[in-house]
Amino acid sequence: MYRIKCEVKYDGTNYAGYQVQANANTVQAELEKALKKIHKGKHVKTKASGRTDSGVHAKGQVFHFDTNLNIPSSNWKRALYATLPYDIYVSNVDNVDEDFHARYHTTGKEYRYFVRNHPEPDIFRRNYSYHIRKALDVEAMLDACQIIQGEHDFTSFCATRADVKGSKVRTVQRATIEKEGSELVFIFKGSGFLYNMVRILVGTILEVGRGNHRPEKLREMLEARNREAAGITAPPHGLFLWKVDY
Amino acid sequence: MYRIKCEVKYDGTNYAGYQVQANANTVQAELEKALKKIHKGKHVKTKASGRTDSGVHAKGQVFHFDTNLNIPSSNWKRALYATLPYDIYVSNVDNVDEDFHARYHTTGKEYRYFVRNHPEPDIFRRNYSYHIRKALDVEAMLDACQIIQGEHDFTSFCATRADVKGSKVRTVQRATIEKEGSELVFIFKGSGFLYNMVRILVGTILEVGRGNHRPEKLREMLEARNREAAGITAPPHGLFLWKVDY
Repeated sequence: MYRIKCEVKYDGTNYAGYQVQANANTVQAELEKALKKIHKGKHVKTKASGRTDSGVHAKGQVFHFDTNLNIPSSNWKRALYATLPYDIYVSNVDNVDEDFHARYHTTGKEYRYFVRNHPEPDIFRRNYSYHIRKALDVEAMLDACQIIQGEHDFTSFCATRADVKGSKVRTVQRATIEKEGSELVFIFKGSGFLYNMVRILVGTILEVGRGNHRPEKLREMLEARNREAAGITAPPHGLFLWKVDY
Repeated sequence: MYRIKCEVKYDGTNYAGYQVQANANTVQAELEKALKKIHKGKHVKTKASGRTDSGVHAKGQVFHFDTNLNIPSSNWKRALYATLPYDIYVSNVDNVDEDFHARYHTTGKEYRYFVRNHPEPDIFRRNYSYHIRKALDVEAMLDACQIIQGEHDFTSFCATRADVKGSKVRTVQRATIEKEGSELVFIFKGSGFLYNMVRILVGTILEVGRGNHRPEKLREMLEARNREAAGITAPPHGLFLWKVDY
């Protein structure tokens, strides 16, 4: 038995999220369908670093699976490329130790959220970037990012339907915004993220950018430990799971 | 009666081309459907600078229509934005003289064709850029572009099913290639283009880039005045109607 680790990029536009579910087209279902073909009809179970929601993309999602097939990495890549649809691409394949686990061994994750801040829409980026017409106050949003950095209880920034047991304390090592042409790229690196945490952070920081809150308000929101204290959840299509560290 | 000139951007991925046809979703049909709504059910005919094929995009297609409505440009833009689907955007609206004609008064057009020249695909550009893995010889392709420039009979670079009456002599004022990151942008400016001419030019120049022809071969191809002398038609999804001049 060989354990294979894969890095996968996907365009989440046409999927009901990453994780397999009944009667819906998901990225994981496509991956397992492709692996089944390659294994001549035998079902192959995959384990990913975590799920992503419908419409959310990935530049560097990671999953693993076990196989009897002894195939070099470059051939795995080629076989998966030939079998998967055009909006899913396995960009890296490694043979790993059989105790490697894509979910349990993550040491950190990076997410990026793209905002087009321009009076006119860009139809060619409509599925990859959240369009906001009114000029945002980037300095104020950077101040808000500073407050988010570090170890905090992120209960206010976690979807209430999430049934995470135990602590909602997480460490955000980096929260910042970079400019790329007409887009603002929100970058979040952390040890781990709660359900919808990045999208709620972005939705809240954008309220600061719109001038509806002072940046310091985020300190109060964190302290409230109540989802209702924070802002709205930004739409999924601007979000990318960028990188998973092990 | 007012004559209105519009500049429109569209993502051609989900359309059977620009021009209205029976039982197919086209860009023109969407534009006329939107105008019909704005005119409270009255059909409004549009005239564009020319058609584009299925899968081909536009950054600057132009069309005109006539209306009884006396609406300022900015309100036209807003009404069309609110009514059109997300992959079509009217970026500019002008009141023009009633003798203006979007098709007959064009003085030139610019097309751009995007090629991703990289060993790995970019799934997020899959509908906008033609992916070629093997490194292309850009210098040789630029030499081929030089040969294309100027006034020529482009019969060899025109789809045979095109029933253009009269001369196939056209002037290409500019044919060049620019590098943008991992993409090569083929730029063609001319007084007019024959059916499929840009895609056949790109398909043929790429053969030069692959080392299958010397650049000088294009001179022979032009002289042959025979579609079979030139190369294949490059796929539609890399092509953008970039700008129409009047």
